[in-house]
Amino acid sequence: MSNSENVEKMRHTLSHILAAAVKDLYGTTTTVKFGIGPAVENGFYYDIDFGAMKVEEERLPEIEGKMREIIAEKLPITMVEKTKEEALAWAKVEKQNYKKELIEELPEGEHITFYTLGDFTDLCRGPHEENTGEVGAFKLIRVSGAYWKGDEKREQMTRIFGVAFGSQQELDDYLKMLDEAKKRDHRKLGKDLDLFCFSDLVGSGLPMFTPRGGMIRNRLEEYSLSLRATKGFERVWSPHITKVDLYKKSGHYEKFGAELFMVHSQVNGEEFALKPMNCPHHTQIFDCKPRTYRELPIRMMECTTDYRDEKTGELGGLSRVRSLSQDDSHVFCRRAQVKEEVGVLVGIVKEFYEVIGMDKLRVRLSYRDDSDAYLGDKKLWDMAQQQIKELAEENKLEYYEAEGEAAFYGPKLDFMAEDAIGREHQVATIQLDFVMPGRFELGFVNEKGEMEQPVMIHHATMGSTERFLSVFIEHTAGWFPLWCAPEQIRILTINDTVSDYVVKITTLLDGVELEEPLIHNALRYHVDARNESLGKKIREATEMKIPMVLIVGPKDKEAGEVSVRLRDGEQKVKLEALAEFIKGQK
Amino acid sequence: MSNSENVEKMRHTLSHILAAAVKDLYGTTTTVKFGIGPAVENGFYYDIDFGAMKVEEERLPEIEGKMREIIAEKLPITMVEKTKEEALAWAKVEKQNYKKELIEELPEGEHITFYTLGDFTDLCRGPHEENTGEVGAFKLIRVSGAYWKGDEKREQMTRIFGVAFGSQQELDDYLKMLDEAKKRDHRKLGKDLDLFCFSDLVGSGLPMFTPRGGMIRNRLEEYSLSLRATKGFERVWSPHITKVDLYKKSGHYEKFGAELFMVHSQVNGEEFALKPMNCPHHTQIFDCKPRTYRELPIRMMECTTDYRDEKTGELGGLSRVRSLSQDDSHVFCRRAQVKEEVGVLVGIVKEFYEVIGMDKLRVRLSYRDDSDAYLGDKKLWDMAQQQIKELAEENKLEYYEAEGEAAFYGPKLDFMAEDAIGREHQVATIQLDFVMPGRFELGFVNEKGEMEQPVMIHHATMGSTERFLSVFIEHTAGWFPLWCAPEQIRILTINDTVSDYVVKITTLLDGVELEEPLIHNALRYHVDARNESLGKKIREATEMKIPMVLIVGPKDKEAGEVSVRLRDGEQKVKLEALAEFIKGQK
Repeated sequence: MSNSENVEKMRHTLSHILAAAVKDLYGTTTTVKFGIGPAVENGFYYDIDFGAMKVEEERLPEIEGKMREIIAEKLPITMVEKTKEEALAWAKVEKQNYKKELIEELPEGEHITFYTLGDFTDLCRGPHEENTGEVGAFKLIRVSGAYWKGDEKREQMTRIFGVAFGSQQELDDYLKMLDEAKKRDHRKLGKDLDLFCFSDLVGSGLPMFTPRGGMIRNRLEEYSLSLRATKGFERVWSPHITKVDLYKKSGHYEKFGAELFMVHSQVNGEEFALKPMNCPHHTQIFDCKPRTYRELPIRMMECTTDYRDEKTGELGGLSRVRSLSQDDSHVFCRRAQVKEEVGVLVGIVKEFYEVIGMDKLRVRLSYRDDSDAYLGDKKLWDMAQQQIKELAEENKLEYYEAEGEAAFYGPKLDFMAEDAIGREHQVATIQLDFVMPGRFELGFVNEKGEMEQPVMIHHATMGSTERFLSVFIEHTAGWFPLWCAPEQIRILTINDTVSDYVVKITTLLDGVELEEPLIHNALRYHVDARNESLGKKIREATEMKIPMVLIVGPKDKEAGEVSVRLRDGEQKVKLEALAEFIKGQK
Repeated sequence: MSNSENVEKMRHTLSHILAAAVKDLYGTTTTVKFGIGPAVENGFYYDIDFGAMKVEEERLPEIEGKMREIIAEKLPITMVEKTKEEALAWAKVEKQNYKKELIEELPEGEHITFYTLGDFTDLCRGPHEENTGEVGAFKLIRVSGAYWKGDEKREQMTRIFGVAFGSQQELDDYLKMLDEAKKRDHRKLGKDLDLFCFSDLVGSGLPMFTPRGGMIRNRLEEYSLSLRATKGFERVWSPHITKVDLYKKSGHYEKFGAELFMVHSQVNGEEFALKPMNCPHHTQIFDCKPRTYRELPIRMMECTTDYRDEKTGELGGLSRVRSLSQDDSHVFCRRAQVKEEVGVLVGIVKEFYEVIGMDKLRVRLSYRDDSDAYLGDKKLWDMAQQQIKELAEENKLEYYEAEGEAAFYGPKLDFMAEDAIGREHQVATIQLDFVMPGRFELGFVNEKGEMEQPVMIHHATMGSTERFLSVFIEHTAGWFPLWCAPEQIRILTINDTVSDYVVKITTLLDGVELEEPLIHNALRYHVDARNESLGKKIREATEMKIPMVLIVGPKDKEAGEVSVRLRDGEQKVKLEALAEFIKGQK
């Protein structure tokens, strides 16, 4: 048994101990009915119907205490088998109607397993530890609501969620990470740092970006596109709506037609859809005139906003939005050009995430499975998946393979980046597509004067600007690198006698541009010359996480220098050396 | 009587002569029924129902010939009055059912005027020239379809359209302009120069921009925004959809609700609208946190795409599109700051159109009228209109006043620019708004600690990128200025012996950036090293209207120079002087 299976067994056992503790504590005063209690990533939960009783987070220490008692008793965990009839009889006696429902769904004639610890018995497939003492380190951390079977029309239950690991150290590390993640929550930082906002009048999942947020968005998008611009990608533009005919032709309608935002013209009754992706539009730009092999590869890019419908409950901050802006691109090339083009894109992804400071990248090779969720010839798929794997190897990528994760039109290289607190996020993607060019009957004239079909390579470096920003804000905890910080420098005056000296400094700053990673990146600074204490000014600049603060007092003026306060310390810099000093910062 | 009234009378008379000619030519073989025949800008037309007979442009010389005969006869034009009853009797005898309909709509008891020339009589308010000889210079130029009363459910008639001016010189100039306009038609040039395209799968009024068109779009938008960036405007970002609640609050729903593109979520049944303007979104960014007077003016700008529904028949090229991108901005300021803010915007408009080469600007002061199409306190309107006029005077603008042209929320300065062939186009706009801040209950804390309401100033320099491009393409006839041309330079090789020299040239070009009017504008060039004749290469570069062509042969290599071919001539330039030469071009 592998270590991960061991951990899963241990987490599963903890969910039973949780149930036993709950029954022991409250089972005499109320009817406690149990739903399901699985092991999950990082822990376990149990969905419980407490009837009229309200269980909130204040109860968790009490429940956790009882669990520790059960663990200390090292109660043996024993398995018994019952027939379906016996099992239903048990559920009836125990008044466990959710368990009854589960038992009824099991096939006739099957032996149904139950596990008992102490005087608590539960329907369960197992496996479990041998006794309650073998469960490692855990902590109950959250109570939330959950619908029975995830169906909002069914009963609402109480989900008690715990985290559990093999060792106390692992648990401590994880709790520390959770704590750190809470402090870095991009929804909180987005508000504190004045980056984006929502309005009830506009709707959920539709963020608006303030000047500060707009600046960082633009810097990131420009940098992302600039990497491709140097590799021959050219910017195109496509509208945000289209007739659905486009998606009927592409195949998207068949797959996602029911999820499209539909657009209705009141003026003449026409129907359109908001675009959820840009590839079909870009095929039309390819197809707007005859093409020859000499023009290929044709590389188009566009930073544009797509619209995807989400359930309101799933929306939060920038992680899941309805308006997602993609730094999207499509290469139309010949089969023999695929390898080189993908190599270029892999290089771009590596460069981007190194600059961003998330250089620990893994790649998921996303293949199709045997379901009918995919379009196109199976042989082409096999070839494309083989090619994807070769590309991963040739580009020396750390990869793993996953079936059922492909796009409906082809396999993908999905990049996963690790953030500063060890969480992995799906970011860039490179996708091979032999299907859409066929559906749109795209072609170019080859050397022999024959029509040949191009291959499409889809790529987005950030994926979506909004989702990437949610990751980036949490990765940096809002301490953005100098090059993309909305306000890079704040000048704080100690008193009014330095105003002429401040003009000298700002004149100097006006002439400075950062050239890395984005060229011609003019400095963005503010002057805080308010009649407030220096302490207050420093505190506010720190709260806004300004990467560089210049403190200017009469002595600095006299000495022709400034106090430069960075996140990791303060130092004096001569005015004549200031420009170079700034350019030298990351 | 003013000259323009004279011209109108003359054009109106020509429409009668046209009708008389038509009746004379075809009235015996078919029943010719007349609709209306007004004087219009630059000419006149008559809508005629020819029954089964088909009248096309081939007929125009014949009709024009007959008109000239009638003119040569100098027939007197006489007026008679009839009662409504007599008038209806006339229509019945003449089988003029359209005229009958018009007569029926006239009030009872009114004296109805008829004009007669030769044996042709027509219902008409007049006035007319005294005889058919006094009509100046004219030409019939077009036949098109037109619905009776502009109603597509009514009869389709044939509209014969003529142009007419007081003198032959004026007519010749106008016809020459029309001819020039035809050559400059941006729909044709858009295709020839590979700037934008349409797709039946995407839909009409939804242009897509190719890499070349994308480049010029981006250059223009960046330049437009750069002018405001230096004046404290900051880029924000808002989604393209919103709940209609936003427009109910702003007042747009009441005015334009029936014209909105409605967006329907199939996933959870929610309703949204595509934004037709950005001001309501921007109020929400203003309103996302408490504001103080210290922060004002707050200046937001955003280049984003709005959606406006248009009848399919009204869509053509980029002049009228459903997806219109606006270089939009909003200033939130105090009343005392309005004057200075508007002054800054006027300066930006002047600078932009001077650079664009359309510096002949007129301003329409667009006021409200007495209809109920406007929101807000009438006193505020009076004050705002007074202020608009003062601003026009203080900024020494050539202006005229027009009632009924205001936005529903306030008066406007609408800028009209003249293009290279003398046509005037509405371009930039500056709008004062005292209404929307009130409807959204926007406020800031003033020096006294009280809440005060800001004023909004709406401004777009280009108006919409698409519409501006339609004007700019025709204004330049596709010969774009160097700074915004998609392909600025094309290098043509005479033969293969110069390839190393071409590398030297391109290395040099890679290091050149134009700094005016847009800073850091890296050069965009292509090399045409095909094994084709120089003549063919030059022809193709000219067809694509490349502003600068560098011709490179063995002799140039030897002499260390290139032949620079501009639109107005060719000259040799030494390689070491090439960068400065390019930077010196407009």
